Amino acid sequence: MKEQFFKYIQELQDTITSTLEKIDGKATFKEDNWQRAEGGGGRTRVIENGAIFEKGGVNISKVFGELPEALRKQFGVEEGHFFACGLSLVLHPTNPFIPTVHANWRYFEMYDSTGAIVTQWFGGGQDLTPYYLFDEDAIHFHQTCKNACDKHHPEFYPKFKKTCDEYFWNAHRNEARGIGGLFFDYLKENEEFTIEDRYNFVTQVGDSFLESYVPIVQKRKEIAFAKKHKDWQEIRRGRYVEFNLVHDRGTLFGLKTNGRIESILMSLPPTVQWVYNQESEDNSLEARLLEVLKNPKKWIY
Amino acid sequence: MKEQFFKYIQELQDTITSTLEKIDGKATFKEDNWQRAEGGGGRTRVIENGAIFEKGGVNISKVFGELPEALRKQFGVEEGHFFACGLSLVLHPTNPFIPTVHANWRYFEMYDSTGAIVTQWFGGGQDLTPYYLFDEDAIHFHQTCKNACDKHHPEFYPKFKKTCDEYFWNAHRNEARGIGGLFFDYLKENEEFTIEDRYNFVTQVGDSFLESYVPIVQKRKEIAFAKKHKDWQEIRRGRYVEFNLVHDRGTLFGLKTNGRIESILMSLPPTVQWVYNQESEDNSLEARLLEVLKNPKKWIY
Repeated sequence: MKEQFFKYIQELQDTITSTLEKIDGKATFKEDNWQRAEGGGGRTRVIENGAIFEKGGVNISKVFGELPEALRKQFGVEEGHFFACGLSLVLHPTNPFIPTVHANWRYFEMYDSTGAIVTQWFGGGQDLTPYYLFDEDAIHFHQTCKNACDKHHPEFYPKFKKTCDEYFWNAHRNEARGIGGLFFDYLKENEEFTIEDRYNFVTQVGDSFLESYVPIVQKRKEIAFAKKHKDWQEIRRGRYVEFNLVHDRGTLFGLKTNGRIESILMSLPPTVQWVYNQESEDNSLEARLLEVLKNPKKWIY
Repeated sequence: MKEQFFKYIQELQDTITSTLEKIDGKATFKEDNWQRAEGGGGRTRVIENGAIFEKGGVNISKVFGELPEALRKQFGVEEGHFFACGLSLVLHPTNPFIPTVHANWRYFEMYDSTGAIVTQWFGGGQDLTPYYLFDEDAIHFHQTCKNACDKHHPEFYPKFKKTCDEYFWNAHRNEARGIGGLFFDYLKENEEFTIEDRYNFVTQVGDSFLESYVPIVQKRKEIAFAKKHKDWQEIRRGRYVEFNLVHDRGTLFGLKTNGRIESILMSLPPTVQWVYNQESEDNSLEARLLEVLKNPKKWIY
């Protein structure tokens, strides 16, 4: 399974980066291959200052070896070996009318002292962070997520949509980071699903990514924007930074376990503003976004 | 003591904000008075888009009541009441040749069920974050800190300078946030010092703040800067954000205990950049700063 999934994310990285380069038309992804001293490494691909994408990264990594202390504590084991691989992506468009998107699909195995698999699972998801909210974009994104889920189980979409709203909650601001999508973790083999079923589900979601996001980019990329729109985007990007650095378990885990910092923090936006006590006008587009972020909506009925 | 110290920080806030307004000459501080539902409140003063100060805050607060859960856990007590007050300031100048400065001086009391003081202490410090390093500025700042310390005990400066270097360490970047200054905490009454001695020390440090920083502002404010200097400042401000949101105990405590978010996060810089894998040229001014941040220096012999 680990070879099968790693092959999948290698190919998916190629598909996604080549598609995004065509859409951008100006910038290309720069590749950095890196090694992890304790075992494994990754292939980071970053795009900057494009026609569409101001900054973005589509990274894969495969790491293995002895369980780091933080994971031993988390799993309550004294020793063990592990394997983990995944694809992470974040895209920050220049145009404030195009949303930021984040996705991650990953696989984890843990072994006993004989090298046998003790446990294995998949995790991941994808979520959208608009600066100006077009309901039809939110519906399209969620519908694509739901279509992928529904091919596997009717309860997947409502369950993973809810988990996503809960996970990407910027608690200190009492608002969501964005308008959600899917979030799932610890998808293990059980009576209902084999690990192959889990693989089929996660890859179905991964395969749906471009369909969920690209039509939104195409629809919004020609909208003219003014400084006030860009300012608002940069202020909202500040909330994105706050979530990733204060609350995101994946980011904090990476920072505290000697992960590759530049690959982890490629998720941070290129330009950001913090304005004291910024307030939006009643009934403005900005206020409408905030209202939805304070009370996450059901987009699909 | 609590009335005495609160009166001191009220007056110090006035002195500092009126002096900074004179130096800026364009913007003035806007004041927000806020209440804390559980007891107390604060007076936040923020300056934005000045001639010198792009953004800054000089805030005082006084909070009291039942010990919040996070403090009960930290102190290992099941219940109790507390009083805390302090002044916090952060100044982010526009000109990248003027350093950012941060300071905080605070006092804490904890009571038993009869209302008697169980424990009381002072804490705080001040530290400098240059974007371009002038050794004479670092020496001036540290010398002013040392002069204030030396009036109270010859070991204070070396001890609190070391604590400051250790505290403001951006562990995931393996570099200091800035070039340090003083950091001290839990300054209690003991065989050597009365609580009045502690008060006299902390207020001596507070009184020295303007002398430590203002001459540096005056000396650097006319230096012409180009876009490349501003870009570098904004990239380095990103490290400031990373420290405050990932490592700073005060910020995280405030965010997790329902503090006034806008007063806490006024510390974040107005405009920030994150550039993937940014590298400085060998022997450049930027590389020189990084070298000192990687290996904190002794500035005073």
